[in-house]
Amino acid sequence: MEKLYIIKIGGNVLDSPTDLERFLDDFTNISARKILVHGGGKIATKLAEELKIPVQMNNGRRITDEANLRVIVMVYAGLINKNMVANLQARQCNAIGLTGADLNSIQAVKRAVKEVDYGWVGDVIGVNAKAIQNLLENQFSPIFAPITHDLQGNLLNTNADTIASALAVGLANLYETELVYCFEKKGVLQNPKDDDSLIKEITWQTYQELKANGTVSDGMLPKLDNAFDALKKGVSKVHIAQALQLGKLAKPDFVSTVLY
Amino acid sequence: MEKLYIIKIGGNVLDSPTDLERFLDDFTNISARKILVHGGGKIATKLAEELKIPVQMNNGRRITDEANLRVIVMVYAGLINKNMVANLQARQCNAIGLTGADLNSIQAVKRAVKEVDYGWVGDVIGVNAKAIQNLLENQFSPIFAPITHDLQGNLLNTNADTIASALAVGLANLYETELVYCFEKKGVLQNPKDDDSLIKEITWQTYQELKANGTVSDGMLPKLDNAFDALKKGVSKVHIAQALQLGKLAKPDFVSTVLY
Repeated sequence: MEKLYIIKIGGNVLDSPTDLERFLDDFTNISARKILVHGGGKIATKLAEELKIPVQMNNGRRITDEANLRVIVMVYAGLINKNMVANLQARQCNAIGLTGADLNSIQAVKRAVKEVDYGWVGDVIGVNAKAIQNLLENQFSPIFAPITHDLQGNLLNTNADTIASALAVGLANLYETELVYCFEKKGVLQNPKDDDSLIKEITWQTYQELKANGTVSDGMLPKLDNAFDALKKGVSKVHIAQALQLGKLAKPDFVSTVLY
Repeated sequence: MEKLYIIKIGGNVLDSPTDLERFLDDFTNISARKILVHGGGKIATKLAEELKIPVQMNNGRRITDEANLRVIVMVYAGLINKNMVANLQARQCNAIGLTGADLNSIQAVKRAVKEVDYGWVGDVIGVNAKAIQNLLENQFSPIFAPITHDLQGNLLNTNADTIASALAVGLANLYETELVYCFEKKGVLQNPKDDDSLIKEITWQTYQELKANGTVSDGMLPKLDNAFDALKKGVSKVHIAQALQLGKLAKPDFVSTVLY
């Protein structure tokens, strides 16, 4: 099977024009098939503030009422996505910007109201692997904004990490998928304050040890739990890396790689 | 050659939810290959006002400084385009939302500054017919926001009528293209106040007469000039119709059809 990278970048890269340029260069230079999934929460929050729309978060997730949905659709699918596509096209990377509504590529359901009403937030229920394969086989590189739809005409705000792993899992039958979570640190660190203490390989067994001795905690736990879940569902490898290390993806010494 | 409809709708349809629903039903029901090009200027102007960004028009064209470019990218490529795609997908129309930057589908150059500096406004210089054909042959229906790019990373505000005719001309070698300009009236009227005075067919010869006797004037002149220009460049037919008459496109009594 051919290799397919699904790369997720968070907001930090988007905040620095020079970092973004470098990231887009590195993304362009990946010769394998590739998909990018981006966030953009900070820029959305800024626009909401300018429009005097109250922003409410719960556990790091945005409560997405109608006014906030409009904002995130404008910022994610419009401003960020299309500028990224134009900048990739300028590099000869044949990018195509998508949401989950386009080609019905990612289907979701509005999150059921339990203790919290998250509003127009979507939980992914399916990926249209055939449509995405179609694009990939034409050498197009899909650039996904973190928005899905419910097949009833509603757009839904959806976590970008979840979209990336849903895509990696959904395409695992067609490609040897590798999921890359880019964030601000170099990867999983033995000592969070020491960038040189990168843990280069994590297996299910070493993960148990890292949890037991407290090396891995807090925000890294859901990331790694998601990583192992994706591996269980057929994804080949998960990398946890700094966005600016993307150029070194093939060199395993520069990122944390999670293996089943 | 297979038939391909390129349908352009203006802002009026977008302002009325019931009109839009009906239009999207009619668009979905077209069994031939089809492309939609939409506008959205009024909604963009409203957002600019909310953000206290001055809007300046010249001859009906928006002077697009950086702040206004951000607004139109958010509104056209985000808000309007993606909601339209989600609403078409809900109708089983396999829509995919695009700007000219996606797949490098429509290339433009920033308009040269003469008497007026239009800012980030683009004049179309090329259409990537192969990429669009690729989508059409997969039964995907492209939905274009009126935005192009300069291949140097910049998005450009571009007239939707122009985009529609550039697509119809650019694809005329591959399809029997029919261009449909939807607007608020039923078509070209003998008497602008009488909806029943529709002129059903206009040829180059009758156009000269209509101009000479003053039946056609003002805003209809550039529309018809564009229509004949498109026909000269290989487009099969141009229809000028009311958006809500789209369902009757095949019945020539309900629209004005411009023939070479």
